[in-house]
Amino acid sequence: MAIEARSGGRSGGRVRYGMVGGGEGAFIGAVHRLAARMDDEYEFVAGALSSTPEKAIRSGQALGLDPARIYPDFETMAQKERRRKDGIEAVSIVTPNHMHAPAAEAFIRAGIHVICDKPVTTTLKDALRLKKLAEARGVIFAVTHNYTGYPLVRHAREMVRAGDLGEIRLVQVEYPQDWLSTDIEQSGQKQAGWRTDPSQSGAGGSIGDIGTHAFNLSQFVAGLEVSQILAELTTFVPGRRLDDNVQILLRYANGARGALWASQVAPGNENGLMLRVYGTKAGIHWRQDNPNLLYFTPLGEATRIVTRGSPAVGPAGARVTRVPAGHPEGYLEGFATLYTEIARAIRAARSGEKPDGAVTFPDIDDGIAGMAFIEAAVKSSKKGGAWVGL
Amino acid sequence: MAIEARSGGRSGGRVRYGMVGGGEGAFIGAVHRLAARMDDEYEFVAGALSSTPEKAIRSGQALGLDPARIYPDFETMAQKERRRKDGIEAVSIVTPNHMHAPAAEAFIRAGIHVICDKPVTTTLKDALRLKKLAEARGVIFAVTHNYTGYPLVRHAREMVRAGDLGEIRLVQVEYPQDWLSTDIEQSGQKQAGWRTDPSQSGAGGSIGDIGTHAFNLSQFVAGLEVSQILAELTTFVPGRRLDDNVQILLRYANGARGALWASQVAPGNENGLMLRVYGTKAGIHWRQDNPNLLYFTPLGEATRIVTRGSPAVGPAGARVTRVPAGHPEGYLEGFATLYTEIARAIRAARSGEKPDGAVTFPDIDDGIAGMAFIEAAVKSSKKGGAWVGL
Amino acid sequence: MAIEARSGGRSGGRVRYGMVGGGEGAFIGAVHRLAARMDDEYEFVAGALSSTPEKAIRSGQALGLDPARIYPDFETMAQKERRRKDGIEAVSIVTPNHMHAPAAEAFIRAGIHVICDKPVTTTLKDALRLKKLAEARGVIFAVTHNYTGYPLVRHAREMVRAGDLGEIRLVQVEYPQDWLSTDIEQSGQKQAGWRTDPSQSGAGGSIGDIGTHAFNLSQFVAGLEVSQILAELTTFVPGRRLDDNVQILLRYANGARGALWASQVAPGNENGLMLRVYGTKAGIHWRQDNPNLLYFTPLGEATRIVTRGSPAVGPAGARVTRVPAGHPEGYLEGFATLYTEIARAIRAARSGEKPDGAVTFPDIDDGIAGMAFIEAAVKSSKKGGAWVGL
Amino acid sequence: MAIEARSGGRSGGRVRYGMVGGGEGAFIGAVHRLAARMDDEYEFVAGALSSTPEKAIRSGQALGLDPARIYPDFETMAQKERRRKDGIEAVSIVTPNHMHAPAAEAFIRAGIHVICDKPVTTTLKDALRLKKLAEARGVIFAVTHNYTGYPLVRHAREMVRAGDLGEIRLVQVEYPQDWLSTDIEQSGQKQAGWRTDPSQSGAGGSIGDIGTHAFNLSQFVAGLEVSQILAELTTFVPGRRLDDNVQILLRYANGARGALWASQVAPGNENGLMLRVYGTKAGIHWRQDNPNLLYFTPLGEATRIVTRGSPAVGPAGARVTRVPAGHPEGYLEGFATLYTEIARAIRAARSGEKPDGAVTFPDIDDGIAGMAFIEAAVKSSKKGGAWVGL
Repeated sequence: MAIEARSGGRSGGRVRYGMVGGGEGAFIGAVHRLAARMDDEYEFVAGALSSTPEKAIRSGQALGLDPARIYPDFETMAQKERRRKDGIEAVSIVTPNHMHAPAAEAFIRAGIHVICDKPVTTTLKDALRLKKLAEARGVIFAVTHNYTGYPLVRHAREMVRAGDLGEIRLVQVEYPQDWLSTDIEQSGQKQAGWRTDPSQSGAGGSIGDIGTHAFNLSQFVAGLEVSQILAELTTFVPGRRLDDNVQILLRYANGARGALWASQVAPGNENGLMLRVYGTKAGIHWRQDNPNLLYFTPLGEATRIVTRGSPAVGPAGARVTRVPAGHPEGYLEGFATLYTEIARAIRAARSGEKPDGAVTFPDIDDGIAGMAFIEAAVKSSKKGGAWVGL
Repeated sequence: MAIEARSGGRSGGRVRYGMVGGGEGAFIGAVHRLAARMDDEYEFVAGALSSTPEKAIRSGQALGLDPARIYPDFETMAQKERRRKDGIEAVSIVTPNHMHAPAAEAFIRAGIHVICDKPVTTTLKDALRLKKLAEARGVIFAVTHNYTGYPLVRHAREMVRAGDLGEIRLVQVEYPQDWLSTDIEQSGQKQAGWRTDPSQSGAGGSIGDIGTHAFNLSQFVAGLEVSQILAELTTFVPGRRLDDNVQILLRYANGARGALWASQVAPGNENGLMLRVYGTKAGIHWRQDNPNLLYFTPLGEATRIVTRGSPAVGPAGARVTRVPAGHPEGYLEGFATLYTEIARAIRAARSGEKPDGAVTFPDIDDGIAGMAFIEAAVKSSKKGGAWVGL
Repeated sequence: MAIEARSGGRSGGRVRYGMVGGGEGAFIGAVHRLAARMDDEYEFVAGALSSTPEKAIRSGQALGLDPARIYPDFETMAQKERRRKDGIEAVSIVTPNHMHAPAAEAFIRAGIHVICDKPVTTTLKDALRLKKLAEARGVIFAVTHNYTGYPLVRHAREMVRAGDLGEIRLVQVEYPQDWLSTDIEQSGQKQAGWRTDPSQSGAGGSIGDIGTHAFNLSQFVAGLEVSQILAELTTFVPGRRLDDNVQILLRYANGARGALWASQVAPGNENGLMLRVYGTKAGIHWRQDNPNLLYFTPLGEATRIVTRGSPAVGPAGARVTRVPAGHPEGYLEGFATLYTEIARAIRAARSGEKPDGAVTFPDIDDGIAGMAFIEAAVKSSKKGGAWVGL
Repeated sequence: MAIEARSGGRSGGRVRYGMVGGGEGAFIGAVHRLAARMDDEYEFVAGALSSTPEKAIRSGQALGLDPARIYPDFETMAQKERRRKDGIEAVSIVTPNHMHAPAAEAFIRAGIHVICDKPVTTTLKDALRLKKLAEARGVIFAVTHNYTGYPLVRHAREMVRAGDLGEIRLVQVEYPQDWLSTDIEQSGQKQAGWRTDPSQSGAGGSIGDIGTHAFNLSQFVAGLEVSQILAELTTFVPGRRLDDNVQILLRYANGARGALWASQVAPGNENGLMLRVYGTKAGIHWRQDNPNLLYFTPLGEATRIVTRGSPAVGPAGARVTRVPAGHPEGYLEGFATLYTEIARAIRAARSGEKPDGAVTFPDIDDGIAGMAFIEAAVKSSKKGGAWVGL
């Protein structure tokens, strides 16, 4: 039982942050707060937790926020927090997609770092604009593609970079779920409601909600340049306004090929994100729902079961490991790793110094790549499933 | 431990059969002979076991054939066996693909039933012609898509037919291998040699060798009409003359969608045929390399692990089960099931009666479907990955 | 994807707590702190983090404690904290085993609730004395048998209680590890050092370190009265002073039988805690290293894979679930659940009211049962592997 | 996909054999016949297939035996076959246990080789006597502990012998089933009937039926000398006359420890034979119900999944492999391997030459070891679970 010490540590105090969205009835807001709390790197001090002002207030009270820092809307929050001496340094934006861009803009303009859920916006144009704004204002813009926080995902990326797989030939990624197999959005299920509403979700349904995660994961690990994609976006549930299943073929610039499948109508799949990457020398296989194992097969040899926390894992994975091998880590730990590494970047930004420890997290560039992916997929699908550039 | 009795049984004596191909150094010929022997339904009595006459003779001797029935070529064999009173009733054709059609034709013309390996020919045209010939001559023409012989594949098909899955929305089938990850055909590996040689294999490499198996399996279980496919055939290994990886999207007539991936360059996959089918009411999941389990998930309920031989399996699967649950069956048993059910059909044909027991095996129509699939895939790929009708 | 809301919530503010042990180089102290932090139910404010005063101070500083509340030893800490108006309400004791009893006694006498690691003491006598003291002083005494915090372990217990398994016949529990396969304690590995030292660990090695966890888990779920046990304690590594492998047979009062195996010398097992319980009507199977699945087989039916967070899980498991099915929870979440439910009990104790939500955690009675188990096992083993009462 | 050629081959013609038991309604007789047929090494020519003469005749006819060689009882068969020029060379004895010894004796005295099901007799004394008789008469006496026929079991044994695991410390073997969880023997289930009847089964129920398999497997692989065992034989199902669950602790002469659990009342286990062996250098793990994988963990390294048919398997496993990796083999193939290697021994015995290929199969010594194991277990259990020598 090798005991891993976490690298890094706090310098200069915890990061003060607030949240937009994530009030009563939300799921992902609570996840973000827990992730921020896990390594004790953040202090949660302000919020505009709902677009309904009364709900925003009730939610803030329930979470024990200082009443003066419970805001009815994000604009007010950005303005007021900017002026406080102890104002927030960062904001987590966890609203439905269509509010990401306006909220992010308000906080960027206020000089506050942004941690935004995915997809980062509802249009590529918005994402590009946010990048410009963030650069101009000098703020950090993180996007919570949380699956990149799993230790064995980090290790897989490191293996690819080190050439352990040889030249990459194939990327097979899939993300099946089953929770939208029926039209639960018709009966008031809140999570289903906004995800299937183009005015809140954007042009993509499953492609935006989970397809972008799958794409981001595959890019994070395989690191290939995509040249073209071809997408079939399908809506199986009658009356649904957005796709609930997507099949995509990918062509990479180096000649590699890929396939991506994301579905919300595949019974038996709860959250079945799975990545397989094959190169000239080896293949790897990882599943999100049992994330503490990575199958690694050097060509012609027996498959190795590389376990999180074990000596077989290199520094990139070991760095973000909290407990020894055999003591499973999960979804929240991976999410927390993003928050913790973002905190290091924010503390470094305070003083203009380098982060006290390595820092890896998806940022606005990943957000842009995700939006370009969604738009290309929608375009391809509208053209009847044709190849389009990315 | 429920003890399953095999249905059927012999009436009128074992089926006398011979073999074309399958001599020294061959793999699949020995598998066919073992499969024929397993349930004691066949008598192996004649052969033209190699295209090299000396090798044909040596192989026949090694297998203990009557010297008079060891033939230098299939034409001679067809002619001579036709004239014998105790001549073969059936022939197994297990040569490289390009010899299937001429051999099959010779035996059909001799009025001998044909059991042919897949893909059934090298062109769709040949397959259509063979069908006509077989019908005209009244012989049975079986094609050994052996994966349809697994008990849980039979059960899966029965579940789909019974409506247990509701209306089918999605078919995900894959067949990754890794044995052609390098150019072993250059160093004299016989199996690799002919499979990567267009003059012996036909226009398809991995699409013909394993893609047709995957396609056949998905069609056998899901039973949907395919309207269009789009294929990417890729050759990754430098110098190889045929595809070693194929990705295909499928559109079905009922609006369902499918994806098929077959690869021979995916390290870590030995023979990873896997089928998943999702409907409005449930999903199923089956893997060839642990074929005694079928995962079945009714929407909203816990996944069931349906085991071969258990009470959860219906009659179609139970009928072809030899040993009780927990005592694994494998590849050879599935293969043997095809042979055994073909034998029943042949015995029935002797007298013009109905088979003594149910009979299910792929035939020339499946062979034709496979060739149509290969040709459409090659056409789609040549058009740069375009949708084509099937 | 059913979104589970956590029941309970804070009333009356977070619980102020301190820690004894868990400073530099410790593993489990950091785990306790993270577990306490996860649901935001605790405030960490004081510590005597090492038995070496300078290390205690350095560790407290590193963790950002108020210098006034960094103590050189637990006695001072207990005395000083008792006198503070904002003194700690609870203490976590995470030292090697031999310090548990003296530290616990000091805090009990100070009227401070105790959260103690396992095994609770080094002798049964000490454990019984602590119970008396705690009862006399009216403090809560929790013991962190953390594996009882896993949602599916809670669900398994609920199933047994509901009679879903019928009458229990068999309990098979095992806890193999491999990290002590060689004498790493000789080369200064701190975790190995005290665990193999009788003066710090007590009379049991693997039996105390992991055997008690396995026993506690089996009792938590199966809920049977043990009448007799027979133990083989073995020391495989030359020079080691305590057992590194233990095999135990159990006889239960109702006629059921059990077997427990714990080992620290079984290569390939990182932390392989596994529980199987069989009754007249059904069997269950759970593994700690993939804790989000529970296999449940009603006699004669297909095995169900019950997943954490899914509708198949009853209220006892659902209550302690943080994220939806398919988003894996792990070791830290289970640990945190204990802390959170202990916090509820402590807050209730403040006012003499009932906890605001259900509360389940191992307490001093479990600690006593564990010590009785260790002592009986050691006694049985010394008698050459004889049956002894429990 | 490495194509494995089977070593060996026929010399001097197939082995003529007959069968005692295994008629109508029997399970294992059909398995033996199929196993004998698989590699075409045997010719089935005679039988006394039931202790009920009419049934014996009916069964022989159904199997197509020459009427002259369908016998009403084994004595007649032994006498008549001895006198035939083309008489059987070997007999398979597949009756309930109590008939093994008398039948074996009759055929040994007739100079006919014996292939006997397990447990070889109902008393150790009988087994010892059979050995003497067989040696005196110079006949081969094989015992069908068929699980030793699996390729990866052979490989595991080879690894242990080669020292890949270092010195063996621990042997954990288990064999849980669930088919006797209720008193199905009361309702005429034939398999259950004789297995729970001491007059047919002997003194052991589950210990004889499956416990001996587990013990044999562990001895085959680990190859240790057992010094003492301690057994708890339990009968859970009311009214049952023999044990349906057994827990055994083992002490080996080299200081290693073992545990064996066999049960027929553990719902969810169909035929869960599993073996784990741990040494100073590595551990291995194999399960019968997915027998094509062997988990191998060198201490401190990642676990390897060694697959049947792959290059990672040494000659002992490769020799008995029929189809390439990824094409699963199962129970019947393992069983057939025993038959095939016995055939080689029989053919060698014809001429007094060495077998044409390596030969490994359990024989009367294994049968004796099994009976000694049963008797020691029964004795230990009757003494209240005490240690007894083996």
